[in-house]
Amino acid sequence: MSDVDIKALVFDVFGTVVDWRTSIAQEASILLGKKGFDLDWLKFAEVWRAKYQPAMERVRTGNRGFVRLDILHMENLMEVLEKFSVGGLSSAELENLNRAWHRLQPWPDSLSGLKRLKNKFIIGTMSNGNVALMVNMAKHSDLPWDVILGAEPAQAYKPDPKTYLTGVEWLGLKPDEVLMCAAHNNDLLAAKAQGLKTAFIARPTEYGENQSVDIKAEHKFDYISTDMNDLAGQLGC
Amino acid sequence: MSDVDIKALVFDVFGTVVDWRTSIAQEASILLGKKGFDLDWLKFAEVWRAKYQPAMERVRTGNRGFVRLDILHMENLMEVLEKFSVGGLSSAELENLNRAWHRLQPWPDSLSGLKRLKNKFIIGTMSNGNVALMVNMAKHSDLPWDVILGAEPAQAYKPDPKTYLTGVEWLGLKPDEVLMCAAHNNDLLAAKAQGLKTAFIARPTEYGENQSVDIKAEHKFDYISTDMNDLAGQLGC
Repeated sequence: MSDVDIKALVFDVFGTVVDWRTSIAQEASILLGKKGFDLDWLKFAEVWRAKYQPAMERVRTGNRGFVRLDILHMENLMEVLEKFSVGGLSSAELENLNRAWHRLQPWPDSLSGLKRLKNKFIIGTMSNGNVALMVNMAKHSDLPWDVILGAEPAQAYKPDPKTYLTGVEWLGLKPDEVLMCAAHNNDLLAAKAQGLKTAFIARPTEYGENQSVDIKAEHKFDYISTDMNDLAGQLGC
Repeated sequence: MSDVDIKALVFDVFGTVVDWRTSIAQEASILLGKKGFDLDWLKFAEVWRAKYQPAMERVRTGNRGFVRLDILHMENLMEVLEKFSVGGLSSAELENLNRAWHRLQPWPDSLSGLKRLKNKFIIGTMSNGNVALMVNMAKHSDLPWDVILGAEPAQAYKPDPKTYLTGVEWLGLKPDEVLMCAAHNNDLLAAKAQGLKTAFIARPTEYGENQSVDIKAEHKFDYISTDMNDLAGQLGC
């Protein structure tokens, strides 16, 4: 397809740009290891992440007003620590562990790919992570965003249409001038339903070697790519 | 004073980072000159800008719901063109002229100063310009913002406290961890009233050689600087 009308690329971040699973496992192993705990760290990361969608769903369904993801992450962390029988952490230690989400590591191709894409397009976040989380992560890992969009700016969690459409509106663009890039089929389907263009970026080990979902694009998207540099190449960057 | 607690710098943009007066005069002279008009181009820029505060005041006082600055600029442009007896422009020409605000040129020290400051701090906009205007300007002139904050994100025009406080909240910081940087005394006073730290950056020719306001800092601010590199030096960058 033609990309002549695309002005901006917006990205899912957790899983698409950064590898939350091994990053959280590593941070937890360091921070909790120092306190004498020895856990299945990848499992710890997965259990923490598994509480993510249900926590946002309470906001999406209107059972709870909008609260930023840092707060949901902390509430979920308290449950995970209890499940893993981890106790005795100070509030500063809890805060530091929760802020591991601000320090997630990019996939190996993310920085080089984003820098290529930034030369030709506006690039922004379209994440459920809050603004501080996105900004701190970008400072930590040199992610070259032009703009932070997503859940907190829209006060709504993806796949709520408001999240995508607020970003499009703030960019002063039409939906089909914006390319939503994600490793998750449902995120792209929701963006496509609002008229955005869509790019699948395969991250088949986001959940580890035995990942069973989002291995590949399951719908008709405008671009299907193996990583960020592949996408940059397809877009002529 | 100590700067150990400052985490982020947020900037007024029109006048502080970019030179709207000569930029608008130059763009207008090119775009309208081609159509055969010969005006006092600096006066044209000043008259357009003079309609800026009254237009926002209608929003601040609640006489009008929030509308982004691009729309106010266009409404004001129509009045200015009538005053200067300029007619016969197509809607594409009007739109292009209005978008001159997306292409304002930085002061000579802005880029080098901001790049130094970005190495140590989060740097963001705290402008009444809308998000698209800020993003397009940054792409046009290589302004290295980490985050776009200000009027449209807060749905309120400075000096409404909500503009500053929404930015602080989204950064996940306390007000006194954020340094508001501006060439305008009233902008800094309003930020200071909300607990932000303040830095005056002198732009004594923003309104030309005979500028009568904001020549110097008129109140007690945390930093008083002659330009962006002077501020960077004072902050140890």
